Amino acid sequence: MIKPRTPPGIMELLPRDQIAFQRMLDTIRRSFEGFGFLPIETPVFELSEVLLTKSGGETERQVYFAQSTGALEKASDGPPELALRFDLTVPLARYVAEHEHELAFPFRRYQMQRVYRGERAQRGRFREFYQCDIDVIGKDALSPRHDAEIPAVISAVFEALDIGDFTIQFNHRKLLRGYFEGQGIAADAQVPVLREIDKLDKRGEDAVRATLSGEGFGLASGVIDRLMAFSRVRSKGHADALARLDALGDGTPLFEEGREELREVLRRLQALGVPESRYALNLSIARGLDYYTGIVYETTLDAHPGIGSICSGGRYDNLASHYTKSRLPGVGISIGLTRLFWQLREAGLIETADSSVDVLVTLFDDAGLDHALGLSQQLRGAGLNVETQLEPRKLARQFQYADRAGIRFVVVRGEDEAAKGLVAVKDLRRGEQFEVADADLARTLLVEREQWRALGKSAG
Amino acid sequence: MIKPRTPPGIMELLPRDQIAFQRMLDTIRRSFEGFGFLPIETPVFELSEVLLTKSGGETERQVYFAQSTGALEKASDGPPELALRFDLTVPLARYVAEHEHELAFPFRRYQMQRVYRGERAQRGRFREFYQCDIDVIGKDALSPRHDAEIPAVISAVFEALDIGDFTIQFNHRKLLRGYFEGQGIAADAQVPVLREIDKLDKRGEDAVRATLSGEGFGLASGVIDRLMAFSRVRSKGHADALARLDALGDGTPLFEEGREELREVLRRLQALGVPESRYALNLSIARGLDYYTGIVYETTLDAHPGIGSICSGGRYDNLASHYTKSRLPGVGISIGLTRLFWQLREAGLIETADSSVDVLVTLFDDAGLDHALGLSQQLRGAGLNVETQLEPRKLARQFQYADRAGIRFVVVRGEDEAAKGLVAVKDLRRGEQFEVADADLARTLLVEREQWRALGKSAG
Repeated sequence: MIKPRTPPGIMELLPRDQIAFQRMLDTIRRSFEGFGFLPIETPVFELSEVLLTKSGGETERQVYFAQSTGALEKASDGPPELALRFDLTVPLARYVAEHEHELAFPFRRYQMQRVYRGERAQRGRFREFYQCDIDVIGKDALSPRHDAEIPAVISAVFEALDIGDFTIQFNHRKLLRGYFEGQGIAADAQVPVLREIDKLDKRGEDAVRATLSGEGFGLASGVIDRLMAFSRVRSKGHADALARLDALGDGTPLFEEGREELREVLRRLQALGVPESRYALNLSIARGLDYYTGIVYETTLDAHPGIGSICSGGRYDNLASHYTKSRLPGVGISIGLTRLFWQLREAGLIETADSSVDVLVTLFDDAGLDHALGLSQQLRGAGLNVETQLEPRKLARQFQYADRAGIRFVVVRGEDEAAKGLVAVKDLRRGEQFEVADADLARTLLVEREQWRALGKSAG
Repeated sequence: MIKPRTPPGIMELLPRDQIAFQRMLDTIRRSFEGFGFLPIETPVFELSEVLLTKSGGETERQVYFAQSTGALEKASDGPPELALRFDLTVPLARYVAEHEHELAFPFRRYQMQRVYRGERAQRGRFREFYQCDIDVIGKDALSPRHDAEIPAVISAVFEALDIGDFTIQFNHRKLLRGYFEGQGIAADAQVPVLREIDKLDKRGEDAVRATLSGEGFGLASGVIDRLMAFSRVRSKGHADALARLDALGDGTPLFEEGREELREVLRRLQALGVPESRYALNLSIARGLDYYTGIVYETTLDAHPGIGSICSGGRYDNLASHYTKSRLPGVGISIGLTRLFWQLREAGLIETADSSVDVLVTLFDDAGLDHALGLSQQLRGAGLNVETQLEPRKLARQFQYADRAGIRFVVVRGEDEAAKGLVAVKDLRRGEQFEVADADLARTLLVEREQWRALGKSAG
């Protein structure tokens, strides 16, 4: 006998949690599709040679390799031929480069698949997790206007997910680097300084200040003051965001370019009708990754800052330089849904989902089975999800089952009801019971379901 | 520069095909949920020790193993710790055994995920492919009534997929083995004889007859005649199925048990309203796998028998004997969607999908952008999927783009329309153009979309 268990670092869900998770996936997908993003899926493994174009990156230390039994048996020197994707960005780059001549640009794709990282085993760290990504990829160029649509998508997603107030915070690498330039920090020192600034939240101001004034950086105290003041800028509301941009004073051409792009983003966010409480400038955001070159985004839950960014991304200059000579600038974001779901559940923010089953059709005795089957099919034809009790059990047990499973409607047809051509319906959500003619059952339940959804929506 | 390409044996789709594929997945899922099946997902890899409980099976020769960079670097004797799932049945067994005390039985689950097999590289053979499975798992026992619901699900799925007429064919291992018993074939010879009978379609009658009369089997010519006649039984319609069961004559208790269960299935299929053209007895079906113990199903497209079975499964006695002492009988089916999609596309049975984008909001000049953004958001709020043209281009090119992308509605607002508070809509499906007030646009497009869908449904 082998102990049944998953490998460590896996989040596996029981059906009711899986339903809640699936609803989040569906909601995100509907929002992505609402903005005209097109679906793609890529294989779980890529050729190692294709996936691992850079060497020595931290993420690439965590790669899983795959080999078939046959490949294992052949002794071979190099690394295995196949590697599991560790994000959706490298597969996107490969996909766009491979299908470049079959795609229309700007190419707007969404992708919601699992990725794999050999993380250290640790609570809340997953070795398999969903990423839900959108990216817009231009050919040769891509207008900064696309940078403004991205926060509108983020806003639509998290409005629809209904997990509390959130703020999309953004900054701009050109603004940041332009400002550093203006403070006399040389081009090759900017990325290292950015990395230190990026650690402000984690390490605290004193530690970062010590590093920046110490050997290696050697920044003057006044410069550090100004960098710190700059990185403390947060806006509150639309007008304030514009005012704070103005208040930064004149800067280098790079700085002005970044500022102008941020102004454009703010202008278009207003045209898109994104509520001004949903977005803010946060000039401390740098995003650790070197490949961001323009706007960068992070999204936080207002009531749960400890969860950290729940949706991040930004603008990059060239997606697929390893695979094609074409220049493919892009902008995109990623939601790490497995981790988000886990955190929301830990924080008690995810309610147990109602079942995906709307109706349980009960069974008194064997004689009633054919009627129960027919009635179930009739309800299914109307678009309801129905489970039929196929073997007679005590009615109390059938009700108990429906209640535990989160099934809302229980349909009962005893002798009395049968004689009158009726069925009795118990609504376990409202705690009400009513009788209805067979022929009207489907319509009645559909109306109830819609009303309940509308109620949930306005109440939530 | 590295050549961007997928590993061999992968089906990767361009967006319009991905949309068609996604619609099939959604349709299957809706049908599964309609019958009250609950979703689960399991990780792509399992512990090798857990996944590979049997040794030497053909499928298990095809297993992919996974190891992290760290594990690769440690020289180790045994096989790698992790292995990719090669079907959804073993993970289901592990899941049910692991969560046995948290699940309600009968446990009805659906699962739609990719599985991995190191197949020989060959056209139409995939190393990564979707399986869409349902299973009903009982604790200790499971009524044969569940066997009748399964063809009703298959029928609902393929009605909804709308890929042509199909027939769900079934047989029963007890009927089959009981009949063999009656012909004096010993218990331990039945499975080998079944395996030969199962090859009738592939090898032809003469070759199978030669094997059965030859050394090893040594069956008498009369016995072989009767086995062949038995295996040629096909029914046409409900009454004929019952009549053919009757006409088989008396048999052993095992035979009678199988016959009674088939009669029950037929009776309940009628109560479920499954059209009689959708199902048939086919007593040649044995399903190669030894673990089926009751009813077995195969489904074929009437106009494309060459595609083979597109949905197969059956009843088994015990799902998870490697992981738990509990007896867990079950019944289930599997659709290999990747291969089915590929075959349908090869046969020209899948039309290029319309885009998931309903509307392209065009742009004349920069001054119109804010209006275009606002209008797009208004349409999204009504549930339409909208792409906004963010940079002005020649109108002809915007129309051409929408046409190629399969986007149905193109919204245009020139100076004339703007002056009147109208927008012009070109419906690329109907080839019509009309004007409508901004405020009525969303409702108008929604009504058009619904009418078109209704039309497609009645015409299809």
